[in-house]
Amino acid sequence: MDSINYPSVLLKDAVEELAKLPGIGKKTALRLALHLLKEDKKSVELFGNSIIKMRNEIIYCSVCHNISDKEVCQICSSVKRDSSIICVVESTKDVMAIESTQQYKGHYHVLGGVISPMDGIGPSDLNIKTLESRIADNNIKEVIFALSTTMEGDTTNFYLYKKLGKLNAKITTLSRGVSIGDELEYADQITLGRSILGRTDFAPNSQ
Amino acid sequence: MDSINYPSVLLKDAVEELAKLPGIGKKTALRLALHLLKEDKKSVELFGNSIIKMRNEIIYCSVCHNISDKEVCQICSSVKRDSSIICVVESTKDVMAIESTQQYKGHYHVLGGVISPMDGIGPSDLNIKTLESRIADNNIKEVIFALSTTMEGDTTNFYLYKKLGKLNAKITTLSRGVSIGDELEYADQITLGRSILGRTDFAPNSQ
Repeated sequence: MDSINYPSVLLKDAVEELAKLPGIGKKTALRLALHLLKEDKKSVELFGNSIIKMRNEIIYCSVCHNISDKEVCQICSSVKRDSSIICVVESTKDVMAIESTQQYKGHYHVLGGVISPMDGIGPSDLNIKTLESRIADNNIKEVIFALSTTMEGDTTNFYLYKKLGKLNAKITTLSRGVSIGDELEYADQITLGRSILGRTDFAPNSQ
Repeated sequence: MDSINYPSVLLKDAVEELAKLPGIGKKTALRLALHLLKEDKKSVELFGNSIIKMRNEIIYCSVCHNISDKEVCQICSSVKRDSSIICVVESTKDVMAIESTQQYKGHYHVLGGVISPMDGIGPSDLNIKTLESRIADNNIKEVIFALSTTMEGDTTNFYLYKKLGKLNAKITTLSRGVSIGDELEYADQITLGRSILGRTDFAPNSQ
């Protein structure tokens, strides 16, 4: 579809913009553009402007760097949450995932990525300095590492551990193991191995 | 993902707008929104505005109803094309698909859909009246039906045939058959059946 003859330059521009989105090719972009052409003008204006408005007006929490409506986000300003625990995550998506479990009542710290030399992302590109000062200045008891179990995630964990290890906070990480509902024979070897090594006391009520 | 707790109402609005696009669910919309947040403000404004501009300023050819840059589109105003043949298609996408073959040098007529009682689309919702007058008023020799081979496409073909049959133009339809490069054993029965019934003279040079 490289040499498409668009009947209108307006259509071409819109398709090319839509095709810049991750996971959306030229064919899908054309389908989306033709769909938007069938919608009424007001809806399409709402569509475009909501995206522009989000980009221009969104703010990040000055404490945890998560996307926020106010200078300090709801989680950081809540009196119901335990401010002595910080869960370190990569992005807003991870905060939303953990929040949806309703199992965690501490605070967060959004790094904004992980160390990835291949993509040119080093420690200075991430919100690590502010994490250090948060832990040093406040009475933080525990820091939970909740990054992806990829090479980049592990590298970042290791870097953070070296930086934060001198501070007084206890450092923990998410438990890894066989997913709930999974059959053992289908679990991958590494996960199953970690699951055996990290076995916990049997507690009938929490099953 | 129904009861997602968005950290910002701006993010929520943008995700909900993106999720209105066909084939894009809430999870993908969130991924797209977070991607757009990482882009610079100018790019995102260009993105949103190109879509709004397309919807507000696009025009349709007054002759064939295809998307156009001018009042009469490039194809309809080209002196190099045969104005005595009209190919009837459902949408702009079909014009682009046929144009990309570079095998057709006639004109088009974009119906804007097919008759579909289930979706509440009747003949009066389509550009059929203008097709009739185009054929009656000009010296049209041939009308090619190039609609989808769905029930709705067949219904529309039949309706058009009854309307246009009285006029002088010859009515043809795209040939159906085994795709080039396909193995016979994998062709579906209906296509293969039509392929045998509609067999053509063997012409070594066109293979």
